[in-house]
This record gives sequence, structure tokens and C-alpha cells, in this order.
Amino acid sequence: MSVIYERVALIGLGLIAGSMAHGMRRAGLATEIVGSARSAETRKVAAEIGLCDRVVETAAEAVKDADLVVLAVPVGAMGAVAQEIVPHLKPGATVTDVGSVKRAVIDAVQPFIPENVHFVPGHPLAGTEHSGPRSGFAELFDNRWCLLVPAEGTDPEATATLRRFWEGLGANVDEMDPDHHDLVLAVTSHAPHLIAYTMVGVADDLRRVTDSEVIKYSAAGFRDFTRIAASDPTMWRDVFLNNKEATLEILGRFTEELFALQRAIRTGDGEHLHDYFTRTRAIRRGIIEAGQDTAAPNFGRSTAAS
Amino acid sequence: MSVIYERVALIGLGLIAGSMAHGMRRAGLATEIVGSARSAETRKVAAEIGLCDRVVETAAEAVKDADLVVLAVPVGAMGAVAQEIVPHLKPGATVTDVGSVKRAVIDAVQPFIPENVHFVPGHPLAGTEHSGPRSGFAELFDNRWCLLVPAEGTDPEATATLRRFWEGLGANVDEMDPDHHDLVLAVTSHAPHLIAYTMVGVADDLRRVTDSEVIKYSAAGFRDFTRIAASDPTMWRDVFLNNKEATLEILGRFTEELFALQRAIRTGDGEHLHDYFTRTRAIRRGIIEAGQDTAAPNFGRSTAAS
Repeated sequence: MSVIYERVALIGLGLIAGSMAHGMRRAGLATEIVGSARSAETRKVAAEIGLCDRVVETAAEAVKDADLVVLAVPVGAMGAVAQEIVPHLKPGATVTDVGSVKRAVIDAVQPFIPENVHFVPGHPLAGTEHSGPRSGFAELFDNRWCLLVPAEGTDPEATATLRRFWEGLGANVDEMDPDHHDLVLAVTSHAPHLIAYTMVGVADDLRRVTDSEVIKYSAAGFRDFTRIAASDPTMWRDVFLNNKEATLEILGRFTEELFALQRAIRTGDGEHLHDYFTRTRAIRRGIIEAGQDTAAPNFGRSTAAS
Repeated sequence: MSVIYERVALIGLGLIAGSMAHGMRRAGLATEIVGSARSAETRKVAAEIGLCDRVVETAAEAVKDADLVVLAVPVGAMGAVAQEIVPHLKPGATVTDVGSVKRAVIDAVQPFIPENVHFVPGHPLAGTEHSGPRSGFAELFDNRWCLLVPAEGTDPEATATLRRFWEGLGANVDEMDPDHHDLVLAVTSHAPHLIAYTMVGVADDLRRVTDSEVIKYSAAGFRDFTRIAASDPTMWRDVFLNNKEATLEILGRFTEELFALQRAIRTGDGEHLHDYFTRTRAIRRGIIEAGQDTAAPNFGRSTAAS
């Protein structure tokens, strides 16, 4: 692998940016990685562990002379960061982001982008329940998808280079239009996250089932929900506030189906339940065949977790 | 470890019974394991892979001279199996089950149990998304909980022996009353499973988001739901039909909370969302500290799943 961007600026130093830094080094994709984060503690940790070649105090400083600028902050902070960095961008630079919502990010960032800079929004579909500057690792994007969402009229060269960069990080790359992206992600990510948060919240609320019982006996299915519901609260707050319509639409569909299944339970309609459960089983097979998850039982987690 | 029951009869040869067979051999808990299953194909596979010392055609035949009889069939089939085996039980034998619901199993089985036989209902909180005679493995119960639900007046000796047996399989054992069991499991298992089935069904239904997109981009959270929703349809149909009240109660609570979060999204109440998501994160930490799951990102599954 050879250098794709001389200098890369990472704005925000959480799980995704950190994994990008590790991945760039693994593949030699950049000559220099400069990072910045709003939190002094995050900058301190990043500097300590050598996450970037240089950690600087402000986003404005980080983007100086950068060939690629990666906005890796919560979706709700993208606009303010764009505004801050714009006067300092190098002509010909590419700005991208890693936000989980695309329409809102484009609306917030695009107006600030000058004519001599390429804006190619992106979204790597990868993550874990951990966050912060210590949580990244080079393999995070291996065999995962990264969706690029270039506006019409974007320089195809800039998009092609960013594509090679993500491929260098191990990802498969697809292009998609922003509204379709937001709907697909509402189904595959945003609604499932809200549902997991809700179920874990309900368990926490129940006074007759003490916390300790819920935790002790979680292996029966619940623990998979808690993993998702342990994701970064600020990031997810911003996702829901910025992909409102699609998320609410999918949740509406979800509630409708859930009510139908609840009715089947209440009326004892075993056939309805059995048919439904048989159909959903096939989707799992598809995901395993597509190489997007492991066929090992329980995700291959060691049974004795302690 | 020494022999706890001379002859053990496994009625049903799926994931749980198969894992018990492997686990008994690992620890030398039984002198002879006899198995039976309703399906000829299951019996054939079990015999081929040597899952038991003997595979016989009927449950009645399997229980002959058995010191421990394990009912490992779907909850809805427990009553019929109990009726079939009762005339053939050895005096002094212990009958247990591994059903995910306890009140309904007790109501279905207890009336058939003769005075000279001990009935100690049980439920190992362990499983995977796989099923069938090939899916079992000795480690399934290691560090997992097994709940015993003896009726008042049960011989304490019989319960104590069954406890040692489960401990020999690697499990931690607790006792609980059946109604409390059914409520706890509604929270930690039954409601989460129904919710996962529903979400996967919704994704499957959406025509604008093609199957292939849902599968391709599943790593964003959805794939965790599909694992749960790939569990055995017959087993789960029976769970919901036999733990109706507790499941519907928890689902009612769930819907209430989900509506509150949907309203927060609609009205842009970021503080409500952020507080909620922060609270649920703590539960995950509790589960990891209790040794009931791994702290490794994404359950430690290999990132490149293919």
C-alpha cells in the first residue's frame, strides 16, 4: 500500500478516528496524521498513547495543510466544526465525515465548504460499544462497508481517491444517495439501537426484578441488547435528533408488527408466531453467507466470560 | 468428578440435551446416557455422532431404569411426554426439565408424577442460535446459571443431587419460585426475543430497503438482533404461548417507554435521550463485572467475519 494523502487531519479522537489512525499506519496510507479533540482529557490520552503524529488544541490548527480532513465528531457538532475549519483549509483538500446520518450532516456542512475544497460525506458501518481515544483498533473496518455519499457535481477524482483510502483501511466501499442512506440505516442501525436502549431501560425500571437478577440472568438473550445499549450516548442522541423522520417511520412499522405479535400471543395463535419466527431465521443465514457475521454460536464469544 | 446418576435419560436431543450429554461425559457424571427424540432424523444423527450411549425410539423406552429423566422438548410438548413416560419410571427416579417457562410446565407435568418419583423442574440459562442434535457442546453451561424450581415438599435430597449434577456440568445453581422465574425470564429473555424477531421481520418487510441491503449493511447493529431471531421457532412459539401474562406485561412496559422515547425524538428533547442512554450503559458494565459476558468489543467476534 502506498501513501494516499500526505497529511490527514482527524477532528475528534474517538473510536472511529482512532481506528482510522491505527488503520492508516497499518497500511501506510498517510505521511502525517494530525489530530484534535475538544476535550483536553481526550487530547492528553491521545498524545500519551501516540495515537497521532501530532495532537493539537483546535480543529482550525489541525486542518492546516491537510490533504484529507475527517470530521469524526457527533452529528450535531458537524456544522460548528465545519464553520471553524473553513478559513484554514488547504485549496484542493478533501473534507469527509464519518457521521451515521447523511442528510443532516450535508445540510449542516455543505454551505460552509468553499469552491476549491471537495466535500465527500462518508459513513463507515463499523463500531463497537466502546468509545474514547483508547477504543480504536486497526481491524475495525476490515471487511465492513463504508458508504460514500458525494453530492452531484463532486469531482470524481476526489471521490475515487477517498474510495481507495477506505479500501486501504480494509473496507468495501459503496456509493449511495443521502436520503436512501438515512432510510437504510434507520432499519439496520438506528431503530435497533433505540429498541435496545428501550428494552434495557425497561429492565432497569422494574422494581420486582432487581438489577442484580437482570444482570445475573442476562445470558438468556438480554445481554446482546445491553451491548448495543452501551454505545456512546452523545453520538446516539445526535443520530436520533438528525434522522428523525426515517427513524420514526421505522419505529412506527415496528410497533405495528409488535402489536400483531402481541395479539397472536394473547389469542394463542401459535401458527402466526411459528411462521414469523421461521421467516426471520432465513435473514440470519443471509448475513452469515454475506460474510457480515460469524456462524459460530453466540458470536464465538467464550462461554465462560469471566 | 464422580458419577451422580447411574443412568440418565434425555428426552429430546436438541441443543440443550446434546450439550448435557457432552458435559456429562466431560465430567463423568453418568454411567450410561440414553436418548430419544420424536424425529427419526434426529435419532439417526444422534446415533451416528454417538451423542448418547444408546438412542432408542420412544421416550417410554428411554426412561426405563433411568435415575434421572431430563425432559428437553419444547414447552408445549412437556405434558404429553410426561403422560407417556409415567408408567415406565423407576421408583425413586428424579424427573427434571429444561423448559424456559416454569409455571406452565409444572401445571402440565406435575399431575402425572407418581408419589415415588421426584419432580424438580429446572431451567439452564444458556443457549445459542443453533439447534438440533449436532449443535450441542460441553462448554455451553460453563459459568451460566441454572435455576431449579422445586415445589414445596420436594425431597431436599433429590434437589441437592440435581444441583450437584448441574454444578458438574459447569453451571451455577440458584433456586427460585416458578412465578418469579417466569417474570424474570420475561424481562431477560422472552421480551427481548420477541422484540428481536419483530425488528428482523420489519426489516424483511420493507420493500424500499431490499433484503440485500439489510444484509450487506447489517454490521451497524442489526446483526445482533438477527442472531437472537434465528433461534428455534417451535421452542419460542411455545415459550410465548406458555408465558403469556408476564411477556405481555413486559411488552406493555416496553411499548410505553418506546413511545416516550419516540416523543423525545419528535420534539427534539435531546436531554431526555442522553439521560436515558447514559443510564442503560451502566447495566452493561454490571453484566461484564458479573462475568456474564465478555468486555471485548463486539463480543470478541473476529472483525472480518467471512
